[in-house]
Amino acid sequence: MSEAIRISEIFGPTIQGEGALIGEPTVFVRTGGCDYRCSWCDSLHAVNAEYRATWAPMPPAEVMAEVAHLSGDRPLMVTLSGGNPAIQPLGPLIEMGKAQGYRFAMETQGSVARDWFASLDMLVLSPKPPSSGMTVDWPVFEDCVTAAGTAPAVLKIVIFDEADYLWAQDVAARYPALPLYLQPGNHTPPPPEDDSAVVDQDGIDDRMRWLVDRVVADGWFAAKVLPQLHVMLWGNKRGV
Amino acid sequence: MSEAIRISEIFGPTIQGEGALIGEPTVFVRTGGCDYRCSWCDSLHAVNAEYRATWAPMPPAEVMAEVAHLSGDRPLMVTLSGGNPAIQPLGPLIEMGKAQGYRFAMETQGSVARDWFASLDMLVLSPKPPSSGMTVDWPVFEDCVTAAGTAPAVLKIVIFDEADYLWAQDVAARYPALPLYLQPGNHTPPPPEDDSAVVDQDGIDDRMRWLVDRVVADGWFAAKVLPQLHVMLWGNKRGV
Repeated sequence: MSEAIRISEIFGPTIQGEGALIGEPTVFVRTGGCDYRCSWCDSLHAVNAEYRATWAPMPPAEVMAEVAHLSGDRPLMVTLSGGNPAIQPLGPLIEMGKAQGYRFAMETQGSVARDWFASLDMLVLSPKPPSSGMTVDWPVFEDCVTAAGTAPAVLKIVIFDEADYLWAQDVAARYPALPLYLQPGNHTPPPPEDDSAVVDQDGIDDRMRWLVDRVVADGWFAAKVLPQLHVMLWGNKRGV
Repeated sequence: MSEAIRISEIFGPTIQGEGALIGEPTVFVRTGGCDYRCSWCDSLHAVNAEYRATWAPMPPAEVMAEVAHLSGDRPLMVTLSGGNPAIQPLGPLIEMGKAQGYRFAMETQGSVARDWFASLDMLVLSPKPPSSGMTVDWPVFEDCVTAAGTAPAVLKIVIFDEADYLWAQDVAARYPALPLYLQPGNHTPPPPEDDSAVVDQDGIDDRMRWLVDRVVADGWFAAKVLPQLHVMLWGNKRGV
């Protein structure tokens, strides 16, 4: 019997709204619990301990049953998100899903390395910039990159300001072989219990345009710049 | 001396706003002239014969000099667009640019096949759906796919309505091996001499959400759905 996974929510299919797989239909499996407390976290309902009671312990077979139900039994990309999904025992889930034809992407900050990263179809490493208030443990982050092995891995860095931007340049210089995505931050993330909170999309769009200008001015052409498309289309609404 | 290319505009760097390379910094080389007259064309200044006088004949070296000037001599992805760039003699330009480290993507409807398609780093084939008023010549389209050889090629299909959507499903079935991008159409394209024309972004966003819902309802998970990000960020403005 595989260990249960703490599940905050399973939803979709919808399109992936950001990063390397933007536009691709996917079911999101959001795990509960996180070792970080980013100042601008947009998923506090899957992070803060006071919501722990809402995180259902589910064995892998039960998670896959729900994914298959949502997808009408048609294999697609499953996106493991959180919280930090790396603190959950996801190896057996990935193994089981892949046997059924599903593929798996995972988004994590890179603070916990697992050998099952190598089974992923896409590992998105999102080291958190200075504006988050977090500090990256680089040796552990390096362990995460190593754990991916030959699995496709990319960097995605959220940018709020100039300090974040300069920090992202430093990170990119450490990992020149990893495809890099820069993403303007949402300074109006939803409170954990209110997904109807209004987004300042104009402000986010300003940041997006600034980021494009900044990358172009620096001739930083290896950086791809993408917004959170789901926020542009659906605001802070959950489940899309 | 290589044959001159009819150039409508060269601009950038900015990010690619749509399709497989969305978010990637690029310089656009827009050629003048087109064998199609799509009802909703958003680039009539590079299509209609009355603008022919604005299309400068430029030898490849002059085009590359301008691209290098704009990019600060840093190689990046060059996007060949139009009009229909396939009716221009672009082989020598691609050869020259690649020798300088530049990469080349091209967007074309697939109505004219060229052997130099095989030199591209990305061939985006955009067969035009019923709403365009055009009719695809499928044997020629097949020649385009064949001409790409081992070069990466993708399908991008603009969708305005249900008829376009059903047509796209048929096209996808013809080319299951090609990655597929669906893109909601802009029903408020700019008149050729007015790039300040207001875009009905709400209407386009509605179409985008409908398209996501449609793809999800059909379990069509091989289709990626992406909007025109540049229109969301900059409206009909040219040069971005």
